[in-house]
Order: sequence, then C-alpha cells, then structure tokens
Amino acid sequence: MEVSSVKKYAAEAFGTFVLTLFGCGSAAVAGATLGTLGIALAFGLSIIAMAFVIGNVSGCHINPAVSLGLFLDKRLSAKDLIGYWVAQFIGGLVAAAVLALIISMCDLGGVIMTGLGCNGFGEQSAVGLSVVGALIVEVILTCVFVLSVLGSTADERTAPYAGIIIGLTLAFVHIMGIPLTGTSVNPARSFGPAAVLAASGDVTALSQVWVFIVAPLVGAALAALIWAGLKKKATN
Amino acid sequence: MEVSSVKKYAAEAFGTFVLTLFGCGSAAVAGATLGTLGIALAFGLSIIAMAFVIGNVSGCHINPAVSLGLFLDKRLSAKDLIGYWVAQFIGGLVAAAVLALIISMCDLGGVIMTGLGCNGFGEQSAVGLSVVGALIVEVILTCVFVLSVLGSTADERTAPYAGIIIGLTLAFVHIMGIPLTGTSVNPARSFGPAAVLAASGDVTALSQVWVFIVAPLVGAALAALIWAGLKKKATN
Amino acid sequence: MEVSSVKKYAAEAFGTFVLTLFGCGSAAVAGATLGTLGIALAFGLSIIAMAFVIGNVSGCHINPAVSLGLFLDKRLSAKDLIGYWVAQFIGGLVAAAVLALIISMCDLGGVIMTGLGCNGFGEQSAVGLSVVGALIVEVILTCVFVLSVLGSTADERTAPYAGIIIGLTLAFVHIMGIPLTGTSVNPARSFGPAAVLAASGDVTALSQVWVFIVAPLVGAALAALIWAGLKKKATN
Amino acid sequence: MEVSSVKKYAAEAFGTFVLTLFGCGSAAVAGATLGTLGIALAFGLSIIAMAFVIGNVSGCHINPAVSLGLFLDKRLSAKDLIGYWVAQFIGGLVAAAVLALIISMCDLGGVIMTGLGCNGFGEQSAVGLSVVGALIVEVILTCVFVLSVLGSTADERTAPYAGIIIGLTLAFVHIMGIPLTGTSVNPARSFGPAAVLAASGDVTALSQVWVFIVAPLVGAALAALIWAGLKKKATN
Repeated sequence: MEVSSVKKYAAEAFGTFVLTLFGCGSAAVAGATLGTLGIALAFGLSIIAMAFVIGNVSGCHINPAVSLGLFLDKRLSAKDLIGYWVAQFIGGLVAAAVLALIISMCDLGGVIMTGLGCNGFGEQSAVGLSVVGALIVEVILTCVFVLSVLGSTADERTAPYAGIIIGLTLAFVHIMGIPLTGTSVNPARSFGPAAVLAASGDVTALSQVWVFIVAPLVGAALAALIWAGLKKKATN
Repeated sequence: MEVSSVKKYAAEAFGTFVLTLFGCGSAAVAGATLGTLGIALAFGLSIIAMAFVIGNVSGCHINPAVSLGLFLDKRLSAKDLIGYWVAQFIGGLVAAAVLALIISMCDLGGVIMTGLGCNGFGEQSAVGLSVVGALIVEVILTCVFVLSVLGSTADERTAPYAGIIIGLTLAFVHIMGIPLTGTSVNPARSFGPAAVLAASGDVTALSQVWVFIVAPLVGAALAALIWAGLKKKATN
Repeated sequence: MEVSSVKKYAAEAFGTFVLTLFGCGSAAVAGATLGTLGIALAFGLSIIAMAFVIGNVSGCHINPAVSLGLFLDKRLSAKDLIGYWVAQFIGGLVAAAVLALIISMCDLGGVIMTGLGCNGFGEQSAVGLSVVGALIVEVILTCVFVLSVLGSTADERTAPYAGIIIGLTLAFVHIMGIPLTGTSVNPARSFGPAAVLAASGDVTALSQVWVFIVAPLVGAALAALIWAGLKKKATN
Repeated sequence: MEVSSVKKYAAEAFGTFVLTLFGCGSAAVAGATLGTLGIALAFGLSIIAMAFVIGNVSGCHINPAVSLGLFLDKRLSAKDLIGYWVAQFIGGLVAAAVLALIISMCDLGGVIMTGLGCNGFGEQSAVGLSVVGALIVEVILTCVFVLSVLGSTADERTAPYAGIIIGLTLAFVHIMGIPLTGTSVNPARSFGPAAVLAASGDVTALSQVWVFIVAPLVGAALAALIWAGLKKKATN
C-alpha cells in the first residue's frame, strides 16, 4: 500500500471521527436544550467543517454509503472502496469511545447520561417505528442524501462548494428522520456507538445495527441507479 | 412524447415527492420537538437537496406555481407546463401515501399521529385565519417566493447556486406562514396530503384545498407581472 | 423624475414592505413557537429573498440606514438618498397596515394578538433596557450591520452573493438585540408598525420611535467612517 | 510600527470585540429564549459578519488560536502574531466591559442577569465536566475549527467565501461544546469576560481561564500539524 492511500484512508478515518463524535455527541450531551433541528445541524455542519479540510485528499465521503454510491458511479476503485470502509468504521468506533470517555468525565450529581446517539427502531424509536418502517425510512433518507452527493459534485460549477450543499442536505434528512430512527444514512456512524454501548453491557443498539448498515447501502445503490438515469439526460 | 420529456417529468415527480414527504413528514412526525423554524427549514432544505440533483434535467420546479411563473416568463412551453403539473401532483400524492404508510408503522402506545401536514384556514389554522385572510396570505407568500425563483435564476452569476437562495426563501415564507395557513405556496404539496387524508375519511383538508391551489397560482402570476417590470429596468 | 428612478424607488418600497411584513409578522404571529432565533432568521432571510429580485434594480437597501451608509461612501446620490428614504418609509407603513389587516382576520377565540413587532425600550424591552442603553445598543448593532453591507458589496468576488452575507449578518444582529430592543437597525421597519399601532390608539411605540430612527442613522454614519479607514488599507 | 500594522491590529481588535460582544452577549442576555443552537449561531455568524469587513485588512482571525495556526503554517509573521494577540485580547476585554455596561442598564425588576458568557468546568459546566475533560474537549473543538480555517483559506476556489465556511464551523463546534465548557476555542473570547467578572468580585471564571487559553493553543498547534500532513498530499 503506497503512502498516498494511507493518507486518504487516514483522512476518511479522521473525518468520520469528527462526524460521529460531534453528531452523536450533540444528541447525547446537548439533546435536551438543542432540539431536533440542532441535532440535525450538528450532523450536517460536520460535512461543511470537514469538506474543505480533507476534500482535496479523499473527497470527504466519511460515510460508507457515500463511498458505495461513488463506487457504483465509477468514481472510486474497488480497492479504495474497501480501504475507505475500513477507515470509516475505525473513525466511527474511535469517536464513540472518545464520546463515552468525555461523558464519563461529567458529573451531573448522580444523573447519568446514557445513550451515545445510537440509532434504533421499535422501542428505541421515539415514535415506535417498526423494523420494516425503519428499513423503508433509511432507504429513502439515504437515497436522497447520496443523490445530492452525486449531483452536487458532478457539476464543475457547483463542485467547489458541494460541501455546503451536501452538509445542508445531511441536516435535511435528519430533520424528519430523528424521531423515526435517529437517522443513520451512515453505517459507520451507527456501528461505532452501538459497539461501544455493547462493550458496556447494553447490546440493544448492536442487535439492531444491521438495519442501519443494510438500509443505507441499499439506499446508496438506489441513488446510483437513479443518478445513472438522470445523468444521461443531463448531458444530452 | 419523446424520452427527454418523460425524464423531465419523472424528475419533477421525484422532486415533488421529496419536498412533500420530508416537508409534510417533518410537520407530522417531528413537529412538536422541531418547532416552526425546523418545519420551515425542512421545506426549504428540500430545494437545496434536489436542485443539484434534478436541476440540470428539469430545472427543479417541484411546484406548480413555480412552473406557472416560469411559463409566464416564457421559459417553459405550454406542453411542459401541463406535463410538469401532472408530474408534480403525482409526486405530491405518492409522497402523502408513503407518509401515511410510515405513520401507520409507528406505535406510540395508543397515541395516534393525525394530520399529514395539510394546509388549512378557519379552525384548521393555528391562529384561526379566515378564508379571505388565507387567500391574501397565500398570494403574498407565493408572490415573494416565485419572485426569488425568477430573479435568482435569471442572473448567470447567481444561477449556479440559485438552489441555495430559493431554498432559503422557501424557508423564509414558511416562518410567518406556518401559524397562519401552514404555508402552501405549492398546490401539489397541498393536494397530496389532503387527498390521502380524505381517502381515510377526513375530508376537511380536501374541502379547503381549493384555496391552496388558486392562491398560489394567482401569487405566481402576480410575481411574473412584477418581474416583467423589474426585468426591463434591470437590463436597461 | 424619469421612469428609471420611479422603478428604483418602487423596488425599494416593495423590498421594505417584504422585510417589514415578514419580519414583524413573524414576531407578532409566530413569536411564541418560533423563538428568538426564528424571528432573527425571518428578518435575515428577507434580505436573501429580495436581494436577487431587486438587487439589479435598486441595490436592495430596503433600510434607510443602509442607504445613508452607501450615500456617505459615495455610492448613492443625494437625490436617490431622499427618494430611497421616502420609498422605504412607505413600504414599512404599508407592510404594517397589511399585517394589522391579516391579524384582524384571525380568530383566536377571544385572545387578541397585540403588537406589530414594534421596537421599544424601558417597559417595552424584554429586559427593561434604558433609553440610553437602547441608543448605545442600536448604534452598535447598526454599525456592524452596515459595515457588512459596505464590505461585502465592495469586493467584486463576493458581490454576487453579498445578499447571503448581508442576510446572515442581519439575522446575527437580531439574535442578541431582540431581548434588548427588538432590534431595529432600520428606521423604516420601526416607524411603520409604530405609526399603525398609534392609529389604533396605542401611542407608546410611536413615542419611542425616535430612538430607532436616530440611533440606526448614527450607527450607519459610524460604519461609513470605519469603512473609509479600512478601505484605504484594503487597497494599499 | 508602520501605519499598516496599526490598521491590521485595529481591525483584529474590532473584530474580536464584535465576536465577543455578540457571542457572549447572546448567551448572557438572550440565552433562555435562544437555546444552544441560537447561541452557537451567534458565535458562528460573527465570523460571517466580520470576514467581509476586515478580511482584506487583517485576514479576520479574531482569535489567538487561529493566529497561532496560521503562524505555524507560515502565513503570519512572528511580529504580527504578537500584535494580533495583543489586539485580540484588548478587543475581548473591551467587549466584556461594554456587555457589562449594557446589562447594568437593564431593569428586570430585581432580577439581575449574571455571567458574561464565561467558559468553565466543574461546577461551572452545565454537565459538570472535569478539568481534564475540559482540556480534552477544548483541544478537539479547537483542532477541528482551526483545521477548517487552514483548509478553506488555502484553496483559491473557496477562499473568497471561506468566511461562510469558517462561520458555520464555529457554530458547529459550539453545538456540542456549549453544555460541556460553553465552548471557548478562543482565548481572547474567554479572557475578556473572565477578567471583567473578576473586577466585579467574582474570580471563579478567571481562576479557570488558563484551561481556555492553553487548550485552544494546543488544539491550534495540533491542527497545524495535521494540516501539514494533509497539505502535502493535497498538492501531490
């Protein structure tokens, strides 16, 4: 593996770390005074914060579903897809561990903050969404999000500030999705907190995390399919 | 009908689906923890999410009033106006049906979410706005919104990021309008939820929906009139 | 007066109408469910909504303090300064009248909405700010706001999207200012609602409105002074 | 010292004054009706308000940690680093004094607003974060923030609107950080309010302020280190 790939993967790990730490951290630490809109913006603004830092290095996917979409659109090699995925899951895991560490350093006088911004369905959903509902919702949310990535980066006029468009779109898909599933659209962001929570004995989120791996990947594939059709027209 | 038109109409149907599902869905599912500003941004950000996906295909009107404004400004053919309208109403209808499906998969322990983000006046308005008031408000809101579409897309310096300007303006017209009428400014976004709610037996929204078809179209025509005057000056 | 001036003044009247109706309307109608941030964004986004509609016609000042700042920076003639001022005050007045009309069409079951988003000090300030405090605060708020207008429109790289920068800055100066004075920074936005409220018998706001005319104009003059110093350096 | 430096330093003092007055002022005056998101945006939008006013003069650092990051990236001389630091601390001090003055002019009928938006840990943290936790959190928050400054200003395509990206990133790092430490990431913004509060007899914030000087500077150095690695790759 040449140095160049290491740097790309390190950039993806770092970016996913920031997205997961700040997004899930906002939900876990500030949720009550922040509200749904604030949590949505914490996730969305992570893209704006990172796009102009690592965009020129790795493209700033920081999401396995985004990498899959770009792979299917033939903008990412199979080797890099695997490398990005590994890096992204590591970034999400480290972020969840750091978040758990920070929370362990808080003293609310007996009140213990629980949860690390995990996604969930059934009793873990604020509105009791079923597992089938969660699958449907996550496919739709991810499809819309990945389409905005594919579209905004494809036009050279908008590509320089695609990070702003993509970040606002990530906030957008969180607004409706937070009460439903907490909004994943990103397997690495879901797996890290679920795994860290499981290590402390609570395996609920980890037992549900397959939904937030499968559905985002299906949504990304659907986005790539739709984009292939739109793209053809766009360049006619 | 050639393939090219089918793709444009499909893009408009898809975009209107996203606007209606996420906008009305945010109001119906997350409204309580989201507040007026959050719902306004859910609608507004739908434009930012979609503009860079279908903008190069159909222009991303995703609103019959916008299509009317662009038709009156001679940027859309009569044939496409009809095609866009049909596609937009289909998109809004399917979105409302999917939203009803998602809500049916939620279990709040007996509490049932009602409403699909419908618009309304009289007892359906949070502040009891009369029907005449609703007509006046929707004409003004739509006129301002369609003017921003006509203006931001006409200048080639701002056209590449017009989606951002238009999206923020759609959020803007929702802020004051939500407690008054729920803010329509978009007949397809109003008709879909009203029709789906009527199918389940509640015909109130459908009986009021004419206001949210007539007033936005009048507002768009007014915008085209004002823009014709401003445009002349702008190019002097 | 040639046609061209009439159009510029009409554009300013229309833009100030939109800023005042939507800004003050959001405070009066939606305030409780919108919060300080939402009201701040309603005012701020009015600039984004209007800048790309009337920017090429009149420059979209829609604020007598902004026009004074640009006059002092020698970008507006004395004749147009007067014309813009008259138009802006007319726009603010008509907006307040339309807002009162809309509110009169609401039926809250006996509860009557009062206030039209007026500015105030003393007992009219949410935190009981004194008249001297209000003068100081409005001078500072307006100075910062007008500086952002002068700065963002002076650089040809940022000028095309100055409306976005200025709109976000207008939201910015509202965030801290709303509990203090309601934030004027705009004599036309303050005078309209105060005059319409006085016509209905409540002269409190009108008796205080001199603060929100004098202080913004002083703040704009201060901004022009600071900008003259900064500009010199910037072009060295 | 030549005139040119005086102007740069004056610009930095003014910009830091605006950031501190409006950011800390929003927390102190409007906090209750504004919420975490609103305070985060007050800080973030201060960059957008100022970047296009003083950006061409001094670069609009208005933060000693940002100046350190740019010095380590060899974009600022050692002499200017010292000059900027002095100016920034003066700006933060004057802002805190003006904020205390404004608050002294408020009359809440016996209720006295306390606090000037100071940062803190332990009992001064909303969630009781320990001193070690505060050091870790501030290093991470500042590292992410300074990276976005280094990245967005390095690419000539995004540099003209870097102020928007940096401002949104400053809001971003405030969202999670406000309940933890109040978010400093800026020694001048922390020292001013702490010193002014100490002058009135409350030395708690001043006794903790070393954390909000040391950690942001360490975070900025870490950002410069990471950026040096990323930059090399980016230009390969």
